[in-house]
Amino acid sequence: MLHIINAHILNVFTERFEDTELWIDDGRIVLRGPSTTLIAEQTFDAGGRYIAPGLIDAHMHIESSLLRPAELGRLLANRGVTSAVADPHELASVAGIAGLRFMLHDARYTPVRFHFMLPSSVPATTFERTGARLTASDLRPFYAYAEVNGLAEVMDYQAVAQQDPDMMRKIMDAREHGKQIDGHSAGFTREQLSIYRQFGITSDHEATSLQGAADRLAAGMHILLRHGTVEQDEANVLPSVTPQNYHRFSFATDDKSVTDLIVHGSIDENINIALASGLSPTQVLTMATYNAAQAEGLSDVGALHDGYLADLVIFDDLTHFQAQATMINGSWVTDEIITSPVPPLAQSLNFSLTETMLELPLKNERAHVIQVMPRHITTAHRIAKVQCDQGRFKPNSIFNKIVVAERYHDLGCGLGIIEGLGLTQGAIGGTVAHDSHNVIIAGVDDAAMLKVADTLRELGGGLVVALDHQTVVTVPLPIGGLMSTASYDVVDQEYQALLQAFSKISSITFDPFLTLSFMALPVIPSLKLTDQGLFDFETFSFIDINA
Amino acid sequence: MLHIINAHILNVFTERFEDTELWIDDGRIVLRGPSTTLIAEQTFDAGGRYIAPGLIDAHMHIESSLLRPAELGRLLANRGVTSAVADPHELASVAGIAGLRFMLHDARYTPVRFHFMLPSSVPATTFERTGARLTASDLRPFYAYAEVNGLAEVMDYQAVAQQDPDMMRKIMDAREHGKQIDGHSAGFTREQLSIYRQFGITSDHEATSLQGAADRLAAGMHILLRHGTVEQDEANVLPSVTPQNYHRFSFATDDKSVTDLIVHGSIDENINIALASGLSPTQVLTMATYNAAQAEGLSDVGALHDGYLADLVIFDDLTHFQAQATMINGSWVTDEIITSPVPPLAQSLNFSLTETMLELPLKNERAHVIQVMPRHITTAHRIAKVQCDQGRFKPNSIFNKIVVAERYHDLGCGLGIIEGLGLTQGAIGGTVAHDSHNVIIAGVDDAAMLKVADTLRELGGGLVVALDHQTVVTVPLPIGGLMSTASYDVVDQEYQALLQAFSKISSITFDPFLTLSFMALPVIPSLKLTDQGLFDFETFSFIDINA
Repeated sequence: MLHIINAHILNVFTERFEDTELWIDDGRIVLRGPSTTLIAEQTFDAGGRYIAPGLIDAHMHIESSLLRPAELGRLLANRGVTSAVADPHELASVAGIAGLRFMLHDARYTPVRFHFMLPSSVPATTFERTGARLTASDLRPFYAYAEVNGLAEVMDYQAVAQQDPDMMRKIMDAREHGKQIDGHSAGFTREQLSIYRQFGITSDHEATSLQGAADRLAAGMHILLRHGTVEQDEANVLPSVTPQNYHRFSFATDDKSVTDLIVHGSIDENINIALASGLSPTQVLTMATYNAAQAEGLSDVGALHDGYLADLVIFDDLTHFQAQATMINGSWVTDEIITSPVPPLAQSLNFSLTETMLELPLKNERAHVIQVMPRHITTAHRIAKVQCDQGRFKPNSIFNKIVVAERYHDLGCGLGIIEGLGLTQGAIGGTVAHDSHNVIIAGVDDAAMLKVADTLRELGGGLVVALDHQTVVTVPLPIGGLMSTASYDVVDQEYQALLQAFSKISSITFDPFLTLSFMALPVIPSLKLTDQGLFDFETFSFIDINA
Repeated sequence: MLHIINAHILNVFTERFEDTELWIDDGRIVLRGPSTTLIAEQTFDAGGRYIAPGLIDAHMHIESSLLRPAELGRLLANRGVTSAVADPHELASVAGIAGLRFMLHDARYTPVRFHFMLPSSVPATTFERTGARLTASDLRPFYAYAEVNGLAEVMDYQAVAQQDPDMMRKIMDAREHGKQIDGHSAGFTREQLSIYRQFGITSDHEATSLQGAADRLAAGMHILLRHGTVEQDEANVLPSVTPQNYHRFSFATDDKSVTDLIVHGSIDENINIALASGLSPTQVLTMATYNAAQAEGLSDVGALHDGYLADLVIFDDLTHFQAQATMINGSWVTDEIITSPVPPLAQSLNFSLTETMLELPLKNERAHVIQVMPRHITTAHRIAKVQCDQGRFKPNSIFNKIVVAERYHDLGCGLGIIEGLGLTQGAIGGTVAHDSHNVIIAGVDDAAMLKVADTLRELGGGLVVALDHQTVVTVPLPIGGLMSTASYDVVDQEYQALLQAFSKISSITFDPFLTLSFMALPVIPSLKLTDQGLFDFETFSFIDINA
């Protein structure tokens, strides 16, 4: 029996800090308050500091950190995060049910509670070539895992609205198991939201404006305020939160890079943004804990009262949150590196790329060009005059060449022209390219591009800068080409070295790998490249490169 | 598609009434707010009145109304109640699983949603002789019913604290099915509450004081504010409710008589008590709806937003609530009498009572006497000098005779002396006697007592006043001796006639049948009578009547 004394302990039911005590045994809070019968085996004096329930990330993708679940857990626990609702759809796209199993099993090596949501849309579109397709029948057996909390961000509106049988089965399976169904309602109208609610989709992290929040509140949805590395909506939406409605709001990171997590934090950053907006500390901390648990159907976490799991965080400043110690399941979390087994995933890199395949013949010098929009995942579609050499596109520092190679069954590649990466020499590339995660490489030099391809094959996946056809800097991501086996500080250092190398061959100041990872995602505007060629979002069809 | 317009509609998520619209189809709310695509088949103009979600009784016993479930539903719907969380432990004590089945099946004849909790303590004590014993194995198959919402008021603290195997099984079965477990923590200390919470018991309706409420809040329990016919705690506890903590409070009736329901109402009365205390109407109505749903794990009711079941109530006064129209599952409720089949319950009256059995020999004139405490279910235990005739107790208008006869297997009877019923002639009796519901009869005249017994046998159970050994007035309760098959107005009239008859043979002004129904309940103070004799609560043992 652990006895915690001398602390101001948040009461999420009454919006107050109370000077009280906690008695903890066997992973749970036995009693909140003084006891005349319990006997302390250990006493922890909190030194007059504050204690809140452990923070909860209500929606996130582990893979975006480039860390495997166990290692990400180590980093999250440092920030006071004790639960994260994770959608493993990136690795599922690459490795199917073996990928899901790996995520579930690896997560057991960290005390942080990953509550897994089963990916609802693998692949995201019918025409994409991914490593796997997951039907309702594939997902159903996973409800046997205690960590599985429901169905992940349903994003295929048409499949729901038109009652596609497999989507209906996925939804019904979640409901029959009494589990949560999360929405992903980007840009939905009020009436589209209502369709989602008819099918029991009760949460959403895509409110990006005050109107978006008002619509989701009216539809009876829990709103997850997102602040990730790329998508940062929380600050815009915070003015929607009132003392009367704050129970409907919680926090999510969605996608956050390892560096961002180390520098700015996880849900602790969401908290600090909300505190800076003037919301009361008790309400903000309740949003980060109990509200998230309510939104995601987690019944045993998010409060520090009798019977709840003993997940908590200690801190001493109500104006700027910073975790000083984290407890999960009644044990203090240490920063010890967790050794988890090498994942039993099949090698997922099966692609070829040759000099000939990289040849891009053009009828004339007018071509459809993908124009990068800095710090956005969308692109502009423009028609430009580019250079040719013997009827073939000749890259330069303005117009780089880009290739997406199908990596699962060596089904070939698509070629395109990209403006805005600013590569003056060499090439960059990787195996992280939403949502299919085929190999994506951009460069000014075919030999360097082939060097990137060869290096990726050797690494079993990763991110690569080739300064030329010989010298490379890498972040190895051998777990499905998406995640590292290294510790977070090592991955961060590798990533910094990668960006450092990149700065020698381009003058752009935004993250080129984050940008590149969205260039193959056809379901957002405007012009994208898949392994099957250029895809025009406006006409929702493949187009020829010649303009 | 029904379109409701021109209404102020409660938003339980934002503590506001909003001038908006509802679109209802197939029993559910399709959309809250205006639509550009939906087509109304019917339009309902609410005339500028208020609309709230249908009221929810978070804990109640149907049997206390003397009405069968379908008929009680008719009465509740008139008061705006659309859901009631019901513990059918009275009929379960009488008729076991057949009783449970009857309750579940009969409730399907009313649109009011009865969410049944499986009785956790039948019988309430190991030594009581009831019609049935329900083990975990008996209860488990009932989780197949969609209407079953969990385990009912756990009241056997010792069984929980000492981890009695059958009690543990009952609790684990509820948890494994993801269902609710209700508490009944009368008089618990703060630390006893914590034991309940360790086992997942999360709600309680036994907070009777501000300290009791504070203890339950600290323990992380939902508090159901009770206002029943006998137990009326709401007004005492209401000062505990604040704008910050009101989400943890909802309303319950526990036990309410048909007359009380007709005259004062159901949860609408709780609402009016809370309004009178000065709480805001939006908070009070949210307590009566959404909070109850949250407390009891009902996910589809309690709010008027997309996807919720279309259960609602219309009213026009925020200072005094009175239901003007009630909708359940998208249909307006009418007051039409519901014809449900005669219950397939075995005859539960198998007892004999003879002149000889009623003889109460006393060694001298000093005896242990049960003293009624008007309007309380507890009694005083006193030793009094009583009259004897030939060594046998001779009742008079001060000291009446009382008998409890085992009614399931004709196992005999216990005899006692009761002071405070004030019977000057005749006898009264019935088959409602918590929790075993054996036959209980009190009187001054053995012949009249035998007449009561005979009449009960003829009726198959009920309540009886015998003015003498010939003339009786009755309320027939053929369903297990607990519930009538008549309509609520008829039962009310019968009951009024019964009280009228009683007034001819006694001058007491409180309800003698409610009083009598607790005289055989041995688990509360001080002196009670069971079929096995006088039971002393203080020593928790049977005692001899001679003092």
